[in-house]
Amino acid sequence: MKEKKILETQIPAVVPTMKMSRRRMLGGAAALGLALVQDSFGKVVQEAEPLFDVPKDPTKILGVPPGTIGTRSPFEQPKKIPSITSSRTPLQDLFGTITPSDLHFERNHGGVPFIDPEKYELVIHGMVKKPMRFTLHDLKRFPSFTRICFIECSGNFRTGKAELTPQEICGLTSQSEWTGVMLSTVFREVGIDPKATWFLAEGNDAAVMTRSIPIEKAYEDAMLVYAQNGEALRPEQGYPVRLLLSGWEGNTQIKWIRRIELTDQAFMTREETSKYTENIAGGKIRQFSLLMDARSIITFPSYPLQIQRGWVEIRGIAWSGRGKISSVEVSTDEGKTWYPAALQEPVLSKAHTAFRFLWQWNGKATVIMSRAIDETGYYQPSYRELAAARESKGGYHFNPITAWEIKSDGHVYLVSDRT
Amino acid sequence: MKEKKILETQIPAVVPTMKMSRRRMLGGAAALGLALVQDSFGKVVQEAEPLFDVPKDPTKILGVPPGTIGTRSPFEQPKKIPSITSSRTPLQDLFGTITPSDLHFERNHGGVPFIDPEKYELVIHGMVKKPMRFTLHDLKRFPSFTRICFIECSGNFRTGKAELTPQEICGLTSQSEWTGVMLSTVFREVGIDPKATWFLAEGNDAAVMTRSIPIEKAYEDAMLVYAQNGEALRPEQGYPVRLLLSGWEGNTQIKWIRRIELTDQAFMTREETSKYTENIAGGKIRQFSLLMDARSIITFPSYPLQIQRGWVEIRGIAWSGRGKISSVEVSTDEGKTWYPAALQEPVLSKAHTAFRFLWQWNGKATVIMSRAIDETGYYQPSYRELAAARESKGGYHFNPITAWEIKSDGHVYLVSDRT
Repeated sequence: MKEKKILETQIPAVVPTMKMSRRRMLGGAAALGLALVQDSFGKVVQEAEPLFDVPKDPTKILGVPPGTIGTRSPFEQPKKIPSITSSRTPLQDLFGTITPSDLHFERNHGGVPFIDPEKYELVIHGMVKKPMRFTLHDLKRFPSFTRICFIECSGNFRTGKAELTPQEICGLTSQSEWTGVMLSTVFREVGIDPKATWFLAEGNDAAVMTRSIPIEKAYEDAMLVYAQNGEALRPEQGYPVRLLLSGWEGNTQIKWIRRIELTDQAFMTREETSKYTENIAGGKIRQFSLLMDARSIITFPSYPLQIQRGWVEIRGIAWSGRGKISSVEVSTDEGKTWYPAALQEPVLSKAHTAFRFLWQWNGKATVIMSRAIDETGYYQPSYRELAAARESKGGYHFNPITAWEIKSDGHVYLVSDRT
Repeated sequence: MKEKKILETQIPAVVPTMKMSRRRMLGGAAALGLALVQDSFGKVVQEAEPLFDVPKDPTKILGVPPGTIGTRSPFEQPKKIPSITSSRTPLQDLFGTITPSDLHFERNHGGVPFIDPEKYELVIHGMVKKPMRFTLHDLKRFPSFTRICFIECSGNFRTGKAELTPQEICGLTSQSEWTGVMLSTVFREVGIDPKATWFLAEGNDAAVMTRSIPIEKAYEDAMLVYAQNGEALRPEQGYPVRLLLSGWEGNTQIKWIRRIELTDQAFMTREETSKYTENIAGGKIRQFSLLMDARSIITFPSYPLQIQRGWVEIRGIAWSGRGKISSVEVSTDEGKTWYPAALQEPVLSKAHTAFRFLWQWNGKATVIMSRAIDETGYYQPSYRELAAARESKGGYHFNPITAWEIKSDGHVYLVSDRT
């Protein structure tokens, strides 16, 4: 193929104009696929209404020539919902299992630090034969490994009203293809004292986020990752290097990791004593509850959509920190009967797994829901079961079945308390 | 987790300043991981030298709060190399197997058209029981399917000098997770005449790109895809809908698809007669050479890097349009001996597959290379074998082994003609 090189500056900038409007138009806008900006209670506070100069016949106009970097269509503007400490992935706008890197959820404890990769250093010390410093270049020279898995915040739950989207209910989970070095490989380099049973992981952020990790995880599958979805890690996910503890709660997977200290006991940091603990039965508090249990959510149909009679492909994602999803069951009659959904291959361990169930809706009001079962036999519990077991209606590691009420007019709302 | 909603406008804009420089600093810049802008002959014509105000101690400054959309670190600026009709993926800058959507290669015949998804229509007619029009909404209502696979331009080859990067040699291949509807599902809806043996696929671009496709592909695995890497298809890849013919040459996978016509013979369009054909032995021309043969390339180390003595993990990708990669063999002695590389699981059919080979470089000049073998037993040929078989030194479907010369000072150059 013959090609003539052109300079970047010669590429005409064909940028459609966008007119912003504050007019509220919830139902119609959703149907049109427009980006809705919602506050944390699901209310549409701003809406982008595209009014572009779209050519009537695109075949009559030469299109935009190739460039150095691609862009989204101006008609597609997916957004995270930010708060002071986190932002949520728009699960209802996504397809498949990969989360676009710029839509990966965030949960920060002191904001996103700005780090020069050339000055990056990871110190490993404590109960080791040879304390060492590693640059980013050093870490990249080690044998590399790639895996696809989810990361989920252990506080990934919200309920209390009918007008909540999947993004608001559990948008603190996302999935990427991660590349880095196995932590066990780096540990072999420093030489771990056989008496070491824990390690402290410390971040280079304003919170100096720290967690104690049982050393078994280092030998099972822990990684130091420097790449995400094919490219360098994004700043919000720990650039230039983060800890990846697949299947464990997100806060333990220290971002911007700068120090690892090997020890023979947990450090009992603030994040593992006063924070990131949860109620269990008998008025007790559970600590070091590191594994994320199996969960699923139907992302289509979901609030605020309105569906039509006839065939509806119920779609969603399921995941488990314990391994592979073995099945997802769907009920379209408020939990009376359950049917297996189809799972999208390949089903990977500790990974978001897409499920689908073809349903013919007859136009009568009903409730639909999904429950995940993982390869250990764990069943995702109902809200009532979980609330009874925890003697609590929320908190960390709260992974109940999400139920959606379909009104007879097709409008979909969250069933927030009676399942 | 308690969260307080803040308005987007309250998020402080912490944007580091970047100083541009035209100073040339090839070796050092590559080692520093800076973005190099190169012309089509591999010469560095511009170089971005980041001079940011990076905080000395990030733990002393509150970081950037969560936002609605993430961004790359200013230190990471991967770029495609554009020409008038295509732009190439920076393979040497990537990790794993997913290509970030904004770095997916482009090959356009009339530029990227601007299409309103609400006005999108696909017409299917010809030898069918019931000619029909489908909106984007219609296509999304059908049962959906997701797969990870590569798309490669059949003209994906360049050689002729030593100073070429993987991006320049074969950056016209990229990989995504695609979601859409199986074409066979839509064909069942219109009812295909049993006598139909081909279909024409037509794009809504300024070239009105058209190709004739054997109907068997529709029943094997052809898809109409509307999503890429978790979100809506990007404009450069056919927004809102493209044809996905996994393992086939890119130009047949019509982007911005607007019409499918069922017939009992090929249309013999311009793209399948005067274009996209190639020399074979005996002075003949091959037509409808649709399958992409197995190929591999070492992306690290590669030009213009300089490596150091000691352990070097040789890394690259391999792929085949015929199915799964069964093995990749690496030679570090100019093809005298070959060793199997490790393949990253899961190995998927018709997908970029990461391979790795740990090599201890003794500091002597040598040549390294890789060859892909797929599950059909196909072996990636050498340049000489391919040139002899084709009686040509290039053209479409030219997939020879890529060899890299390592000089005794560690500099890496393409071996462009003697393998």
